[in-house]
Amino acid sequence: MRYAVLGTGQAGRTLGGKLVALGHEVTLGSRTKDNPVALEWAADSGGGAGTFAEAASFGEVVVNAVAGRVALTALEAAGAANLAGKVLVDVSNPLAFEDGEARLSPVESDSVGEQIQRAFPDARVVKSLNTVNCAVMVDPARVPGGHQLFVCGEDADAKARVTAMLGEFGWPADRVLDLGGIRAARSVEMWLPLWLDLMRHFGHADFNLELRTSR
Amino acid sequence: MRYAVLGTGQAGRTLGGKLVALGHEVTLGSRTKDNPVALEWAADSGGGAGTFAEAASFGEVVVNAVAGRVALTALEAAGAANLAGKVLVDVSNPLAFEDGEARLSPVESDSVGEQIQRAFPDARVVKSLNTVNCAVMVDPARVPGGHQLFVCGEDADAKARVTAMLGEFGWPADRVLDLGGIRAARSVEMWLPLWLDLMRHFGHADFNLELRTSR
Repeated sequence: MRYAVLGTGQAGRTLGGKLVALGHEVTLGSRTKDNPVALEWAADSGGGAGTFAEAASFGEVVVNAVAGRVALTALEAAGAANLAGKVLVDVSNPLAFEDGEARLSPVESDSVGEQIQRAFPDARVVKSLNTVNCAVMVDPARVPGGHQLFVCGEDADAKARVTAMLGEFGWPADRVLDLGGIRAARSVEMWLPLWLDLMRHFGHADFNLELRTSR
Repeated sequence: MRYAVLGTGQAGRTLGGKLVALGHEVTLGSRTKDNPVALEWAADSGGGAGTFAEAASFGEVVVNAVAGRVALTALEAAGAANLAGKVLVDVSNPLAFEDGEARLSPVESDSVGEQIQRAFPDARVVKSLNTVNCAVMVDPARVPGGHQLFVCGEDADAKARVTAMLGEFGWPADRVLDLGGIRAARSVEMWLPLWLDLMRHFGHADFNLELRTSR
């Protein structure tokens, strides 16, 4: 498969590297064509690098791995025509640190996942992976137990495709919980403050939640 | 021990009933002295019923089990003097349904736990139990596995006392995670939207999260 991974931060590079290692063709997208981080990643991984628009044009599936607060700007640069009809996996969180405090925006009445789906109605947005650290995203065996991920979005086929991609990452389908439509992006984005407190509590990011249920 | 449980909803009645069953003296507090729900609970359980102020005056420990959005009003009726120096366990969530949608207020920049601690600086507020259904609160064996609860608050001794109360409910101390100061009330209150989506997903409320960690 051809993947576009938008964003050259740790999440983008990690996801892009894993997809290349799995045998996929990957273009890492960034704001400028000559982004040194993207070029270094491409040289190291065997993937490609380009602008957001070049990456999105290349990919059959687009992964949004830029920070949630700039996701719309990056996706506008990618171009609606390059996203139309495609599965668009949003792994971002609307996190910013203000005066040393972790803050979320949007929150509660909206979410990045919903913002993206509204702005790009022809893209098939699936929110996933934002609930774990990027090392865990692509290597769930770092954490013991039957811990879980979530997917949500309006398009059942897109969610099935993302669940298959997660399977390639090492997440069995029975550990991927479908929360319904894209509105549930609010819920999984609002997990982040507790995740941050837990990271402080444990002293590392190799953790995840396993849902225990009576039946 | 003498407990005040403020609130005659399902959470208040369930917590009060468990505390009576454990051998404690409990007064269930409500806005009015002749609240029929409270009087019926008292007759059934062997506990007592009274106004918020009567209950808070009676209790050595006060449990806030009124809805988060009216917690401050109830606690003002209880009276700052009746709360001063006491452990005040806040189990509430700032939930309301507006136009059929679950909404949280305060959220993200504040929490009910923090509001209560600010308004009653002499009370020793501990946020806990709000992350699970009230049936699970007092009977964790309803859910299999080593699933967990959180405590947070400014007073270490108060958190230890609440952890001991949770132990009486069936939660071993190693399943109670201390998230630090009362600010973490934001994080555990923001778990609620995901909890609601999961309740829809599972079709029942007998579930909880178990944190899985590499070390």
